[in-house]
Amino acid sequence: MRQGRLITLEGGEGAGKSTQARRLASWIAGTYDVDVVVTREPGGAPGAEAIRELVVAGATDRWDPGTEVLLHVAARREHVLRTICPALAEGRWVISDRFSDSTRAYQGVVQGAGLEFVDDISHLAIGSMVRPDLTFLLDLPVGMGLARAEIRGTTNRYERMGEAFHERLRAAFLTIASKETDRIKVVDASGSEDDVARRLGSEVSRRWPIP
Amino acid sequence: MRQGRLITLEGGEGAGKSTQARRLASWIAGTYDVDVVVTREPGGAPGAEAIRELVVAGATDRWDPGTEVLLHVAARREHVLRTICPALAEGRWVISDRFSDSTRAYQGVVQGAGLEFVDDISHLAIGSMVRPDLTFLLDLPVGMGLARAEIRGTTNRYERMGEAFHERLRAAFLTIASKETDRIKVVDASGSEDDVARRLGSEVSRRWPIP
Repeated sequence: MRQGRLITLEGGEGAGKSTQARRLASWIAGTYDVDVVVTREPGGAPGAEAIRELVVAGATDRWDPGTEVLLHVAARREHVLRTICPALAEGRWVISDRFSDSTRAYQGVVQGAGLEFVDDISHLAIGSMVRPDLTFLLDLPVGMGLARAEIRGTTNRYERMGEAFHERLRAAFLTIASKETDRIKVVDASGSEDDVARRLGSEVSRRWPIP
Repeated sequence: MRQGRLITLEGGEGAGKSTQARRLASWIAGTYDVDVVVTREPGGAPGAEAIRELVVAGATDRWDPGTEVLLHVAARREHVLRTICPALAEGRWVISDRFSDSTRAYQGVVQGAGLEFVDDISHLAIGSMVRPDLTFLLDLPVGMGLARAEIRGTTNRYERMGEAFHERLRAAFLTIASKETDRIKVVDASGSEDDVARRLGSEVSRRWPIP
């Protein structure tokens, strides 16, 4: 059986990642006739969801940034071992709402743990187990994203980190994308849901011709 | 002000570490006229205690061993940054009921994550922030330790890992101690509480002459 593909969706708060993950999964399943698993980070496996509670709840200064990297990578290891790798091995495609680029941008660059620290820990803990085949960075102006997140009614620990934080985060994601243009595709997420969904589908079909 | 000292107590379940930590603290405070902080791992800081809940509760196979290393090292980073280093900087002595050798023995050797993996992650995450000045390995036959732990009435995740696990654990601790004989002092913990306390005090006064 052919190994599945891993597609990750990245970006700041309110960029529409979870909505687009679901739409893309449905489109891929129908277009390529494959099983698609939609998952998320932090989380995506029982232990990883328990770790998620530690990082998304509580005071914004609850954790030292280096500690937070260790927690995110611990959650990712469970997610990769128990959910992503088994699905890929069975030929399923996996779409993850956030993955390693979030840890690199949030904790590595903006929270100050260092990109090298994130990559060194990740190299030891995840290594070559899995790497996204394609990553979409859903980019939009910070004010628009935070307004959408507010309408959604959730206020997790990261959403409460303030506008300056999210401006630096947007820049961090764009810088990361500029260094891996083969893997990471930046998509303007300020348009309508339908527009964004069409752009994602178009890029997927460009990479993997529809049978 | 003179930097304090870090003494760690290691060993399997039921070896008397927490009792001896309290007795040693009281003896050191009276003998050397210093403030002593007694702390423990996993835990010893608010975030670290929250992580503790994830590793001491639940099914014995709840975590992949590599994930468990990341969680223990995350907890240790909080413990070191928020509790141990500030205390040492103020001249206090710190006695920790478990520290890095427990991760090395439990997860590194017995649970199979690898000693090198534990040391590489620890090097990145804790680095040279702190190293124990003296470590006591409280050693006793496995049956005796598990019987004591059972009387105590607690049955955490590690205590439920079975007798063969604890035999391998005892051997792992002794092997680790044999490679760092300057730092790690093996103490026969099968005797009375008073006997063990006398041995610890005697070793401390040998290393740091009583003023």
